[in-house]
Amino acid sequence: MAERLVVVGGDPGGMGAISQARRGKPDLEVIAFERGRWTSYSACGIPYLVAGQVESLERLVSRSPDEFRATGVDVRMGHEVTALDLDARQVEVRHDGRTYREGFDYLLLGTGGHPIRPDLPGIDRPLVHGVQTLDDAADLLLHAEQAHASRVAIVGGGYIGLEMAEAFTMRGADVTLTEQAPQVMGTLDPDMAALVQEALVRFGVEVHVGCEVEGFEDDAVITAAGRQEADLVVLGLGVAPNSALAGQSGLELGVREAIRVDRRQRTSAEGVWAAGDCCESTHLVSGEKVHIALGTVANKQARVAGLNIGGRYATFPGVLGTAISKICATEVARTGLTTAEAERAGFASFATVVETTTRAGYFPGSESMTTKFVVEARTGRLLGAQIVGGSGSAKRIDACAVAISAGLAVDEIVDLDLAYAPPFSGVWDPVLVAARAALRQMEEERR
Amino acid sequence: MAERLVVVGGDPGGMGAISQARRGKPDLEVIAFERGRWTSYSACGIPYLVAGQVESLERLVSRSPDEFRATGVDVRMGHEVTALDLDARQVEVRHDGRTYREGFDYLLLGTGGHPIRPDLPGIDRPLVHGVQTLDDAADLLLHAEQAHASRVAIVGGGYIGLEMAEAFTMRGADVTLTEQAPQVMGTLDPDMAALVQEALVRFGVEVHVGCEVEGFEDDAVITAAGRQEADLVVLGLGVAPNSALAGQSGLELGVREAIRVDRRQRTSAEGVWAAGDCCESTHLVSGEKVHIALGTVANKQARVAGLNIGGRYATFPGVLGTAISKICATEVARTGLTTAEAERAGFASFATVVETTTRAGYFPGSESMTTKFVVEARTGRLLGAQIVGGSGSAKRIDACAVAISAGLAVDEIVDLDLAYAPPFSGVWDPVLVAARAALRQMEEERR
Repeated sequence: MAERLVVVGGDPGGMGAISQARRGKPDLEVIAFERGRWTSYSACGIPYLVAGQVESLERLVSRSPDEFRATGVDVRMGHEVTALDLDARQVEVRHDGRTYREGFDYLLLGTGGHPIRPDLPGIDRPLVHGVQTLDDAADLLLHAEQAHASRVAIVGGGYIGLEMAEAFTMRGADVTLTEQAPQVMGTLDPDMAALVQEALVRFGVEVHVGCEVEGFEDDAVITAAGRQEADLVVLGLGVAPNSALAGQSGLELGVREAIRVDRRQRTSAEGVWAAGDCCESTHLVSGEKVHIALGTVANKQARVAGLNIGGRYATFPGVLGTAISKICATEVARTGLTTAEAERAGFASFATVVETTTRAGYFPGSESMTTKFVVEARTGRLLGAQIVGGSGSAKRIDACAVAISAGLAVDEIVDLDLAYAPPFSGVWDPVLVAARAALRQMEEERR
Repeated sequence: MAERLVVVGGDPGGMGAISQARRGKPDLEVIAFERGRWTSYSACGIPYLVAGQVESLERLVSRSPDEFRATGVDVRMGHEVTALDLDARQVEVRHDGRTYREGFDYLLLGTGGHPIRPDLPGIDRPLVHGVQTLDDAADLLLHAEQAHASRVAIVGGGYIGLEMAEAFTMRGADVTLTEQAPQVMGTLDPDMAALVQEALVRFGVEVHVGCEVEGFEDDAVITAAGRQEADLVVLGLGVAPNSALAGQSGLELGVREAIRVDRRQRTSAEGVWAAGDCCESTHLVSGEKVHIALGTVANKQARVAGLNIGGRYATFPGVLGTAISKICATEVARTGLTTAEAERAGFASFATVVETTTRAGYFPGSESMTTKFVVEARTGRLLGAQIVGGSGSAKRIDACAVAISAGLAVDEIVDLDLAYAPPFSGVWDPVLVAARAALRQMEEERR
């Protein structure tokens, strides 16, 4: 009899593993349960759907249930896995009011995450929306149209909050953004976050930082700074792992209650795997366990889980927390540790900030960009990088991410043979300029 | 008495070293001799000047003679160094018909390169132009305007040839490009070069590959394929080092007669340094000596030479031959070894080509891009990468360049935490897609 893989969750964390698993085990029977209506979609595309840059929900789906079925996967939509029986090697499934069980040889948990909803008065009012799934996005769009939402309040100043602020501004709404912390973009150092906040304000978003949200009414957000009228509220407070099912079945949970996995994406139970927003990762610089809910991580973990389920060998070493976004005309990216994160992880570090242009200074369309390096003091090793700037600036974070992964120090980075031509860069690429500045800083401090 | 540094050549190779040298030796007296009219300019900007995207020659100058003088450098323009007397520690200089000598403690040769001019009938006719210096560019522009050049013949299909072909097409001329080799862009594999050639043809350039140039008349280029009428001919046949002065004084020359230098940019004579297009480099993958005349290399070598002259310690490990260009709407970049170069260097390699999009497929403005990896067969180590594609594709070569420098194999590259958001990339960045494809190819070959 063929072995059976059961996949819980239609997200990339689950579905991305299937083809890899079957490369190693072509006869593997696969059943995938998804409680919603969608499989393998790009949640990261939701802001662009709201902005009108992407025309339909369907465009965000990379593989539909029927496409999976055409490859022989038994995809069961609207089926919710309600319990895991690890001893009996069975899952309990609810569908249309009826509950049944299915056995498995291998179990892959790709249960994803959910938007964090703070326990505040009025949080369940209909104007308050999270955005994590395509169903969330559909609800949000429907509400925005029905309410002719012209006043939109964003709660939370991370990537999703900022991207939704941009999206609703592009739709013509008046947008306020409220963030409890003293800065937007908590994943950046304050000086770099200030540049992003300036870009938001220039774009017309009313930004309140250091401002607590106290509750919601049917037409307003109540904050420490007063009442903000709103037709629609979008929560951008981050994503928590959907790990209740795993926790109830006795699987070990780790940081922020995310499912604990090893480098092969194995959970604490034999034959049970997890990938994506439901599980934790290792930070490659700090060495600490982290929960980073990003599509890149989910897809990589799914690939590794799938290869291992298929009897091959693959490991997921971890993450740098690399992220990139475009807020209006301003690009922003980060990787590795910020100054505060380096401090918390016990590194003695210093930071270097350089101002350059995106292209040769004399080339038409050249814009300004700011690059920040966080560097280990003793060794010169790059610990983190942040970029805020004009068009073409932010993807340079990739060169930094590779350098950090490879453990390069700034005196090695200075020598890197990065590409130059006037439409793309100054003769010293901004990454090299930052490395030079950091090196000089080290020399001066040694004197 | 203060020590004296004599710099021969106003190019970045020479001038870029001065500030570094004086960081270590603030009292250093510096005399710089330049036979032409310009210092520290971007020769790479010349095509954009011709195209009209940069408004004046002066815009390409990053530091003028007077700016250097303001920092205490004795810059002598129109002064040509005609001989080096290494025993007497003196240079012989000609200016306004008179010859004189100056002594030095340190000598830095930044004599640059010159466009290769093949020994063909008619090569000295006034319509034939090289483009290496700003004076060349000024001559070319003057000629183009006086002749109302409407038919321009480019000889040579490397970066400069292609960029000049684009520039003159943008000026409204009919442009032909003739290349002796069977492909344009000899620094790419033939399949990738074919994509670039297609872009050129789409843009309206008449391209003749595998076609020998036999000579020049006053209004035509004579080729093996016939007579091409032309008001103006631009040579894009590469750059040879200006090393005659060094050679005559007994300094060791290396590959292609470029001045031999060690990792600190020291020549074979004590106290004599060289940097830029006049000297050789080490290729970081093949380990071979190479002559790569690029501004990035010149600037890095100048920095290292300067630091060492200033009594500090710095080394220039070498190059990957990273290069990038934009031919019309098509971006192109390369780093490391091509298939043919890997073969010549003795590597057993295989190549992987992947087709992706520049942004998430559903995101507006997403364009196609092709990425090629050259991979060492046994180890999976990345040896080289080539990219041809739409806007935003080519600078991804930097991530590849860092990976090659760090000696990463494709199974390490797959795990790299590169940045993703729909306006910038698919969830698997094209670099990761190429690494996955290469890995799969390795697995299949092992079976």
